[in-house]
Amino acid sequence: MYRNAKNVGYYLIGSGSLAQLEGVLAKLKPSQANPCIYFLDHFFEHQDLASRLPLQPHDLLIYVDTTDEPTTDGVDHYRDQAKAFLDGRSPAALLAFGGGSTMDTCKCVGNLLTNPGNSCDYQGWDLVQHAAPYKIAVPTLSGTGSETSRTGIVMNQAKNLKLGMNSDFTMFDQVILDPDLTASVPRNQYFYTGIDTYMHCFESLTGSYRNVIVDALAEKAIDLCKRVFLSDDMMSPDKRELLMIASFLGGMAAGFVGTVHPISAGLSMVLHMHHGLANCYALSVQEDIYPEQYKEFMTMLEKQKIALPKGICKDLTEEQYTALYEGSIVHEKPLSNRLGPNFKQIFTKDNVIKRFQQM
Amino acid sequence: MYRNAKNVGYYLIGSGSLAQLEGVLAKLKPSQANPCIYFLDHFFEHQDLASRLPLQPHDLLIYVDTTDEPTTDGVDHYRDQAKAFLDGRSPAALLAFGGGSTMDTCKCVGNLLTNPGNSCDYQGWDLVQHAAPYKIAVPTLSGTGSETSRTGIVMNQAKNLKLGMNSDFTMFDQVILDPDLTASVPRNQYFYTGIDTYMHCFESLTGSYRNVIVDALAEKAIDLCKRVFLSDDMMSPDKRELLMIASFLGGMAAGFVGTVHPISAGLSMVLHMHHGLANCYALSVQEDIYPEQYKEFMTMLEKQKIALPKGICKDLTEEQYTALYEGSIVHEKPLSNRLGPNFKQIFTKDNVIKRFQQM
Repeated sequence: MYRNAKNVGYYLIGSGSLAQLEGVLAKLKPSQANPCIYFLDHFFEHQDLASRLPLQPHDLLIYVDTTDEPTTDGVDHYRDQAKAFLDGRSPAALLAFGGGSTMDTCKCVGNLLTNPGNSCDYQGWDLVQHAAPYKIAVPTLSGTGSETSRTGIVMNQAKNLKLGMNSDFTMFDQVILDPDLTASVPRNQYFYTGIDTYMHCFESLTGSYRNVIVDALAEKAIDLCKRVFLSDDMMSPDKRELLMIASFLGGMAAGFVGTVHPISAGLSMVLHMHHGLANCYALSVQEDIYPEQYKEFMTMLEKQKIALPKGICKDLTEEQYTALYEGSIVHEKPLSNRLGPNFKQIFTKDNVIKRFQQM
Repeated sequence: MYRNAKNVGYYLIGSGSLAQLEGVLAKLKPSQANPCIYFLDHFFEHQDLASRLPLQPHDLLIYVDTTDEPTTDGVDHYRDQAKAFLDGRSPAALLAFGGGSTMDTCKCVGNLLTNPGNSCDYQGWDLVQHAAPYKIAVPTLSGTGSETSRTGIVMNQAKNLKLGMNSDFTMFDQVILDPDLTASVPRNQYFYTGIDTYMHCFESLTGSYRNVIVDALAEKAIDLCKRVFLSDDMMSPDKRELLMIASFLGGMAAGFVGTVHPISAGLSMVLHMHHGLANCYALSVQEDIYPEQYKEFMTMLEKQKIALPKGICKDLTEEQYTALYEGSIVHEKPLSNRLGPNFKQIFTKDNVIKRFQQM
């Protein structure tokens, strides 16, 4: 059985394309008179983005706290806020403006508006039963691929697990890629997030679970990432546009990751580190597993003058190291994708903890 | 204003994936009890394909005559046949099994089932007003990109014009890519058709009207075509799979073509030559315009031992040469895409006719 892969419905790309959002909303029939719910990264609370959006008096604007990555409790809270506001009405659309945290929050709230229960009930593969409202993604940060992927990743702190709501219903219906929106991203964050595409694509390509369309898209996304991160200025307008496309294709390609993402997930779980930065640390201690990509990544860091300060795991307790190990080793499928079914003989507790200590 | 590009809804890829068609149809709700209309290339009339399909007694099977490329009259005729059969019912799905001619016929009939008038009324950009029935493409020949493109190309013999029904409604909702289906394609036809992707992608990339996502997809499609046609055996199972993906991505990338397609259109219009072969002849007389691609194409022909016999236009009348010129020069946008706004100063009547004489 092959997977019947769903595509994002529509995409618009180009500098200034955000201005076309009003036209996109006007075409939503028959629901265009209903309210919209806008999810904006809290970074925009003190920026002019909201004033540039076609917000109507009957719409709801929610600033998403992205200090930490989305949690099941957080998503349930935004769901409550949206439900109270809607008061039984159907929304015309849910819109997300931000990076992976904001987009994933919007995707998961969407599922919870049409499905009973809480977010923890839908973490897993194809558990969502009913179609979500129409959703529009406007990434303001490139690299997570959330705009085109079929997952919304949420921390489940009760279960000590980071897991996605993996469903066709989780996907956005429309994506608007306006590279002007990433011009003001801090350089470090731009790098850490953008490199996520590079990482999940090479992890997919070097794994044993493959799919030829995913391979083709991943190869192209890597090619675009190299053009961006090995260039003299990764943030020039044309490079910002290329990185948006890399992220878009990388999200479509979202195949099976390898050993970078599990180690990264441990860091996010235990140290609340953001996904992109955590990936960078994870690859920085895996020269033995991904020698070629490690070298290329180091060149990118140097070329873009991005620091990755050492010593982040040096003062941890025995308990914390164990938690880091457990938060990583739980991701069996990605680990076996790269290391084979006997991955625990390579990623022993000692081996994994030593890697964290080297960070 | 940027174009809001639509994607094909779902895609399945893999050797033997045709077996999943029944499952795909079973999920069509609420219409799955309604009849389906199957369009099969007439090539399959004496093959076992129909017996392997989940045809129900209440379904209609139409063999599409693909001796020549689809015409407006032909499409209107199949529309009449489908309407008479449906007798007011809505179809669960229209399905196409074949190459570009069969897929384009299915796409155009779909539009005519929900829109009044005849096919000639919808040749152009965004003229279709109402959504077509659910449509499924199962390519049995790779290269046209019809499975993912938003156009259905039809010859309008009254207007002496080859023109597409260019609309989001023209697109397929589901694509099933089963490389087993191209195993029995004659080698020449496999080459001529497959190379269409290579051609429209390089024409798009060397033109002046560009779009960065289209560029990325086109680059990848070309890369895959090279892996196929510069290999030792373009028809090995893995190469047939790669070519299916190239076609799929190439259709998504369908940007603006250059000077190959207009000359090719002239040949199809006047000599009823099939699109893929006509493209090959068109490039074979444009070494001056596409030197690098010309050279690469010649290597591909040689490597795959594909003949392109000379002399196809040697015994034509003055009138026929004029018709060839007129059927080419009418494509102003593609010609100016490559040659600039003064393309008529380069592609004079003499210049164009000389090219045809060299074929």
